[in-house]
Amino acid sequence: MAELTARKEITVIRDGERRLSGDDVVVEAPLTIYLNGKELVTLLCTPEKIESLALGFLRSEGLLSSLDDVTGLRLRDDRGAVEVELKNKSGLLEKLYGRRTITSGCGKGTVFFSALDALRSSPVRGDTVSLTAGEIHSLMGELQERSLLFKATGGVHSAALAGSGKILLFCEDIGRHNAVDKIIGECLQQRITMEDKALVCSGRLSSEILLKAAKLRLPVLISRAAPTTLSIELAESLNITLVGFVRGRRMNIYTHPYRVKDDM
Amino acid sequence: MAELTARKEITVIRDGERRLSGDDVVVEAPLTIYLNGKELVTLLCTPEKIESLALGFLRSEGLLSSLDDVTGLRLRDDRGAVEVELKNKSGLLEKLYGRRTITSGCGKGTVFFSALDALRSSPVRGDTVSLTAGEIHSLMGELQERSLLFKATGGVHSAALAGSGKILLFCEDIGRHNAVDKIIGECLQQRITMEDKALVCSGRLSSEILLKAAKLRLPVLISRAAPTTLSIELAESLNITLVGFVRGRRMNIYTHPYRVKDDM
Repeated sequence: MAELTARKEITVIRDGERRLSGDDVVVEAPLTIYLNGKELVTLLCTPEKIESLALGFLRSEGLLSSLDDVTGLRLRDDRGAVEVELKNKSGLLEKLYGRRTITSGCGKGTVFFSALDALRSSPVRGDTVSLTAGEIHSLMGELQERSLLFKATGGVHSAALAGSGKILLFCEDIGRHNAVDKIIGECLQQRITMEDKALVCSGRLSSEILLKAAKLRLPVLISRAAPTTLSIELAESLNITLVGFVRGRRMNIYTHPYRVKDDM
Repeated sequence: MAELTARKEITVIRDGERRLSGDDVVVEAPLTIYLNGKELVTLLCTPEKIESLALGFLRSEGLLSSLDDVTGLRLRDDRGAVEVELKNKSGLLEKLYGRRTITSGCGKGTVFFSALDALRSSPVRGDTVSLTAGEIHSLMGELQERSLLFKATGGVHSAALAGSGKILLFCEDIGRHNAVDKIIGECLQQRITMEDKALVCSGRLSSEILLKAAKLRLPVLISRAAPTTLSIELAESLNITLVGFVRGRRMNIYTHPYRVKDDM
């Protein structure tokens, strides 16, 4: 993980005593995404799984729907840029530049409100997907256990995809949104469907995270942090089970608790 | 604070026992900013101090530099929109749409890399600005003490402007970036200079937060969370004192420790 942290010389003050010390700091790096030869956006991210990040970002933005849309994917500029080629080039730029940007509090999210109405009319299924309270606690425990970059630096969010009570994919990033987009990108790359899975996150569940999940028909969202009113309202109408504040031996189920079973 | 939280009926599982309960959840609401009659962006935010948020956002984006640029500021749509009129209308839209977007991990930030080079050549002054380690601890304590919305919901970030060891302005928002932009907007509205002040934040210090501060020539940035490599490197070259992990009786000074004095 050498390239994801950097050693910095710092001054530590503890109990009034000042000393020089070394500290591992999380690397933040720009990643420019080129779409069909045109510069689209530059994300600031943890430079790991950057192809997944690029694909997940484009999926979240509604610019591609499966790996079959992708005809090219290349890293360049010493991993500071990704070139993505998509089929169906016409119309892409109009799609991009004709929209207004909705962007959140704490997330690079650029989610679009017209998407809301579309999603509202088409709730997530996954009515038979369920997991037990004990499984949720153990998934959250494993998420924290695997967050090595967080343990080293305290400066990243983590996200995981879980199925059958197990973590299948795990990603970390300085960005709450980037971590989720990396999971989405990996699902595309490995052709994993999210319709019967749960997404486990370290960060807050704002409406943008909820919408990312909803677009992929993901039925269960789990976090150790707080949701917002808007994410709860969306989850309610979209038939998504929203679980927050999974800490210690407690959790809050905000919507559709039927998918969380009691332990035997 | 009634309109900033909403009561939701939730299911709590604790130690395997399931019960229904009420829970206060932080309100997330869209705020659309219209600039000179054209829709610019929709932020998702905590609907408080929204004029300050709009002004601070525009300032951070480099679209205005002082209150003198603002010829109109109106709330509309039951506080879901703000109309801002700026002088010097020509050129504004070119400025806006000709740029690439740089957006971070965990922040709505849309900061532009061309700005980096410009800033690098012009470090912050404030060489005579200083505060003691004890003052930093007490500012962080007061920040947490005043974070009523966080105490109620666990779902927001807070930011404060400090001068002469005291908190002068305080803001909360679901977004790390929004909280800082609200402070910046309030400074504009009250014509408070930031050049001799410190910014105290609950959230991580990514490069975007650093750049917001740098644009306002703010010499000291304090957080209870982690910085990134990029924010440290920028702070180093811009002569900004970066203090992180202010917790308990400890803090890490990442750059320019000369502004942090020992307590007598």
